[in-house]
Amino acid sequence: MAEKLKCNACFAHSKKDIRIEERELVYTSNDIVVKVEAGGICGSDIHYYQEGHAGLSVLKHPMVIGHEFVGKIYKAPIDSKLKVGQKVAINPSQPCNKCDFCLAGKQNECPNMRFMGSAQFNPHVHGGFSEYVVVSEEQCFPYDSSISPQIMAFSEPTTVAIHAINVAGSLVGKKVLVMGAGPIGGLIIAAAKASGAVEIIASDISERCQKIALEMGAHKAISPLDKEIFNEFSKDKGYFDVTFEACGAAAAIESTVAVTRANGIVVQVGMGASPVQYPVAQMLAKELTWKGSFRFIDEFGIAVKWLEQGLIDPRPLISSEYRYQDVEQALITATDKNISSKVIVTFFE
Amino acid sequence: MAEKLKCNACFAHSKKDIRIEERELVYTSNDIVVKVEAGGICGSDIHYYQEGHAGLSVLKHPMVIGHEFVGKIYKAPIDSKLKVGQKVAINPSQPCNKCDFCLAGKQNECPNMRFMGSAQFNPHVHGGFSEYVVVSEEQCFPYDSSISPQIMAFSEPTTVAIHAINVAGSLVGKKVLVMGAGPIGGLIIAAAKASGAVEIIASDISERCQKIALEMGAHKAISPLDKEIFNEFSKDKGYFDVTFEACGAAAAIESTVAVTRANGIVVQVGMGASPVQYPVAQMLAKELTWKGSFRFIDEFGIAVKWLEQGLIDPRPLISSEYRYQDVEQALITATDKNISSKVIVTFFE
Amino acid sequence: MAEKLKCNACFAHSKKDIRIEERELVYTSNDIVVKVEAGGICGSDIHYYQEGHAGLSVLKHPMVIGHEFVGKIYKAPIDSKLKVGQKVAINPSQPCNKCDFCLAGKQNECPNMRFMGSAQFNPHVHGGFSEYVVVSEEQCFPYDSSISPQIMAFSEPTTVAIHAINVAGSLVGKKVLVMGAGPIGGLIIAAAKASGAVEIIASDISERCQKIALEMGAHKAISPLDKEIFNEFSKDKGYFDVTFEACGAAAAIESTVAVTRANGIVVQVGMGASPVQYPVAQMLAKELTWKGSFRFIDEFGIAVKWLEQGLIDPRPLISSEYRYQDVEQALITATDKNISSKVIVTFFE
Amino acid sequence: MAEKLKCNACFAHSKKDIRIEERELVYTSNDIVVKVEAGGICGSDIHYYQEGHAGLSVLKHPMVIGHEFVGKIYKAPIDSKLKVGQKVAINPSQPCNKCDFCLAGKQNECPNMRFMGSAQFNPHVHGGFSEYVVVSEEQCFPYDSSISPQIMAFSEPTTVAIHAINVAGSLVGKKVLVMGAGPIGGLIIAAAKASGAVEIIASDISERCQKIALEMGAHKAISPLDKEIFNEFSKDKGYFDVTFEACGAAAAIESTVAVTRANGIVVQVGMGASPVQYPVAQMLAKELTWKGSFRFIDEFGIAVKWLEQGLIDPRPLISSEYRYQDVEQALITATDKNISSKVIVTFFE
Repeated sequence: MAEKLKCNACFAHSKKDIRIEERELVYTSNDIVVKVEAGGICGSDIHYYQEGHAGLSVLKHPMVIGHEFVGKIYKAPIDSKLKVGQKVAINPSQPCNKCDFCLAGKQNECPNMRFMGSAQFNPHVHGGFSEYVVVSEEQCFPYDSSISPQIMAFSEPTTVAIHAINVAGSLVGKKVLVMGAGPIGGLIIAAAKASGAVEIIASDISERCQKIALEMGAHKAISPLDKEIFNEFSKDKGYFDVTFEACGAAAAIESTVAVTRANGIVVQVGMGASPVQYPVAQMLAKELTWKGSFRFIDEFGIAVKWLEQGLIDPRPLISSEYRYQDVEQALITATDKNISSKVIVTFFE
Repeated sequence: MAEKLKCNACFAHSKKDIRIEERELVYTSNDIVVKVEAGGICGSDIHYYQEGHAGLSVLKHPMVIGHEFVGKIYKAPIDSKLKVGQKVAINPSQPCNKCDFCLAGKQNECPNMRFMGSAQFNPHVHGGFSEYVVVSEEQCFPYDSSISPQIMAFSEPTTVAIHAINVAGSLVGKKVLVMGAGPIGGLIIAAAKASGAVEIIASDISERCQKIALEMGAHKAISPLDKEIFNEFSKDKGYFDVTFEACGAAAAIESTVAVTRANGIVVQVGMGASPVQYPVAQMLAKELTWKGSFRFIDEFGIAVKWLEQGLIDPRPLISSEYRYQDVEQALITATDKNISSKVIVTFFE
Repeated sequence: MAEKLKCNACFAHSKKDIRIEERELVYTSNDIVVKVEAGGICGSDIHYYQEGHAGLSVLKHPMVIGHEFVGKIYKAPIDSKLKVGQKVAINPSQPCNKCDFCLAGKQNECPNMRFMGSAQFNPHVHGGFSEYVVVSEEQCFPYDSSISPQIMAFSEPTTVAIHAINVAGSLVGKKVLVMGAGPIGGLIIAAAKASGAVEIIASDISERCQKIALEMGAHKAISPLDKEIFNEFSKDKGYFDVTFEACGAAAAIESTVAVTRANGIVVQVGMGASPVQYPVAQMLAKELTWKGSFRFIDEFGIAVKWLEQGLIDPRPLISSEYRYQDVEQALITATDKNISSKVIVTFFE
Repeated sequence: MAEKLKCNACFAHSKKDIRIEERELVYTSNDIVVKVEAGGICGSDIHYYQEGHAGLSVLKHPMVIGHEFVGKIYKAPIDSKLKVGQKVAINPSQPCNKCDFCLAGKQNECPNMRFMGSAQFNPHVHGGFSEYVVVSEEQCFPYDSSISPQIMAFSEPTTVAIHAINVAGSLVGKKVLVMGAGPIGGLIIAAAKASGAVEIIASDISERCQKIALEMGAHKAISPLDKEIFNEFSKDKGYFDVTFEACGAAAAIESTVAVTRANGIVVQVGMGASPVQYPVAQMLAKELTWKGSFRFIDEFGIAVKWLEQGLIDPRPLISSEYRYQDVEQALITATDKNISSKVIVTFFE
């Protein structure tokens, strides 16, 4: 029998129109209800707010934003392994698990993917910036209650970073370049370190981000404008075994080719400029492997473990924290890349 | 003790200046001397003749052209496994076998590679369009005397095709697109068929080449100008498991992305337009793997076996045959892509 | 609304008790009904007949045997792509498509797998040796009507062979040993040839099977009792790049290690003797890779294509053919390995 | 012009006969002379001392033992990058770099490998337990002088551990079992942790070694005699993604199969019991991948970096330290596995 619950949530209505509104959740005794504790603002949240769309996904009705979030179990079925009060990270990914991609273990390519906080389909799939959410048991990953929700709110972007690592293959003993030291680039730095890379260099145009890159574990942080160092890395068929592009700027994307060694790997994570001029002749002559890294597959549980074990400490990436009632200010702040890396939104009472 | 042998050879002097001239070969009792029987004209031979350079390799002194050729053993050391009179295909690749690339099994990336018939280094490395050549035992691959030299002259480009297949990984059960049905594209078609691909489609702007593609084993040959069929192949995240680009035209290179399925592989073989506008966002969202295929590694012996066993029959690619004395006419003919695929040059008496 | 259909089928009751009995099939307008045309007798069918069980799967009630079979569409839903009268090969594999293995693309490891003609679960899953069967659309693979049902009856064991090839990885240019030239070994020989192997040697104790191995495409067939030749293949860290063990005898399994070259691959396909004494020290020092090949995943469609295209011709493996009414005689004949490879059972009127 | 240097070294003469004797080193101005500082005793050193042979390698003349050692540059050619006084770890591996294995990047399989401190060839290759040694520049890996020689003496066994990790492939997010927590097992534990494994369990019969395993980074240490826990790990097709066998006992080797999950990997590192009874049927049905890990390839530089960066701290493995003059006592102590893990030998003045 269906039960109901009223709570507040952050609804994006259209460009620059976000409102705290009451919603009514409907759930049955078989559902999991989670009381949300904290979330992180991601690029797509900013796009919905600033532009009314994220890429091709256009707001057609008010939608609860947010797909990086954690909470506590509020209701769980009697026979569930989850217990009321237990802290859980929520995987916002909901592949159909029936299509050819899902049945080949490539859920990230599922064309029917219902990702929380995404306007790709109509009706949209509501997100997690809500006092309470209804999710499935498979989406809930319990975590150690000694870890703060603000840290575990990084579970989703950390999952994206670990997927990028998995796309690259083993990093044991590898020399790695990470271009772009925003939240995803920063987490890739930490994930590469946790995966055995021996040398990790970060490249970012912002000095603030360079500093954060060092805190996240980079051995060195450089500016992409420093032509001398890039020329040095381009000598003798290139220096880096693996280059992660996590910035999305055309100049960055192009520059991956020169600095990656022959037979090396370029992993493109940053969704941005497209098309981009690639020096194909050089890519061919160096027999580079180029791979795209899109969303994630089964890496969510690994991210939760690594954050729990402290293998990844995301705190240098937290630039500010807001109560959910101030989500508009949080979004405005998050938009300003001069001051913001990851902006956290809390739902504590 | 050094011995000497005088013979004729095809010397490229400079742009549009190729001459049949006598040369003196010097060899010792430890060397292998091969009496050349037949060779094939490759793109770089045409470039040396038509432009005086092939890419960055500029003719600085007269050089014997030709790196696709076969012959018979004329002299061999007493303790050699090779016997006088034995037919041999010659591998023109001479990696240093001492650098880091060579010691990692990546001889195709050897920066000290001395490739026969190449002006990359000065003095240049003479090629095989010569009545006699001196080579090492490792370069000689004996083949069944019932196979004609004109067929075995394809051993080197077939090696290039097989390397491209190896770069792609297993083709068992795969749907394959080959863009460009010149000699390399045609041999990739045949190699893909010999490797277990279930569906091979060739794309070429020339009807003549489309016809050859079918003879080489393609199940279907299409024109890249047929937008309707390309749109069909682009639906639902793309159709082909593996796309080989063996043409080098910018439009072809770009179009590989749309028609390759999500998680599929694009192998770039054609060295041509660069830079090229790639739709990076689509490559990323489909998690494509892009790989360059450059020269070859240890595939020469496989090519000889496959030509011997008839697994690959290159005869549809032979568009004409000239005596070496007529090499200039052969080069002019080979330049005309309306009539020429592979032009064979013979050295029979 | 459910409809009913009465037909005859081959029911295994218990050890040496197989009967042709009438059964009643129940189906709805959403089901596919196939009129069976031909099938092949597999080892498990023989075990159910001769011993009342196949490994750990014990007959607990009468079960229709047979999991290698093809037929024609008798009934199909209106909106189906399948048409009445169309010839189809039937994939007997029915994974749950919900467990972790299925959602990782490893359906062959599905613990809930309902394989047709298997007594693993109770009630058992009936097989295909029945005049009519009810199957799902996903199980039906249409094939060219010019191919005989007796040939296409090999689609399932050919799928097993292709999976073994996929487990091995690319065979392009490889030297391959196939131990055991029964139906699976014979099909592996043909599949290896279709996948680019340059040298395929078959080993079987039976001269009859050695002859069939040559007909299936082996370059040479040897006896495992010929110690001299095995010693030759064991020299210098071993000869074969890939060894397929498709026999299951302890002596054969052990002998794979010596003849496989350092860094080579052993694929174990034959389910038989266990445990087996492996020379671990030698396997380690040669850094062999050993892999098990169990059932198949998504290779059924490839098998149908290869049989259609003639890339694999299974006819040398057909040792005799019986009408389904004579299934007991067929099973008795199939048991005698001195005279039988694959015994075909037909359901033509 | 050759120069000479007299020094003391530890010569194994025959079973239980080891002597400190003076030797004369001859070197030219192109050679590197290293003043040895510290070394570790390995199993093969113990075997030469206790048995007069290590496996098939029998002492035929007095040989300097020791292949795990570090020192300082004493003499270097003028044009060398190495400087007098610089601390260096020495790679004892000397592949021929000319055979097919070397030219395929598989130097660990080089049949002409001249490994320091090994009696495989006659004359034997002297080892590093000598006040001074002559080595090649390629063998010298400079390291940070703030690291103690006793720590860097683990560079060679750490290289063996990292090679085992590389054989397994990426460990990111993997559940790992390490059987045997001696020096190699302990270093594999640390290397697995440094490579992103999320759960590492060590199994050893000795409580002392279990304790060390925890210090090396295992999340849990168990006894192989605890059948209950092994049964738990064997449920549902097995628990571990990757199992490293670093013990070599027959019972341990056999038990890897049950506890490794379907599609998982078993890496055999421990050279010991052979042949061993493997449950082949289970390995096949679970589609396990089994791989041997033998010596190492290009991982030496990674080991030096990881020890330098503190990613691996080998100190829990150091059970005692002796001056080289007391090498016999060191060997006797190292033989007693009740008290010894790694015994260090020093050459300080």
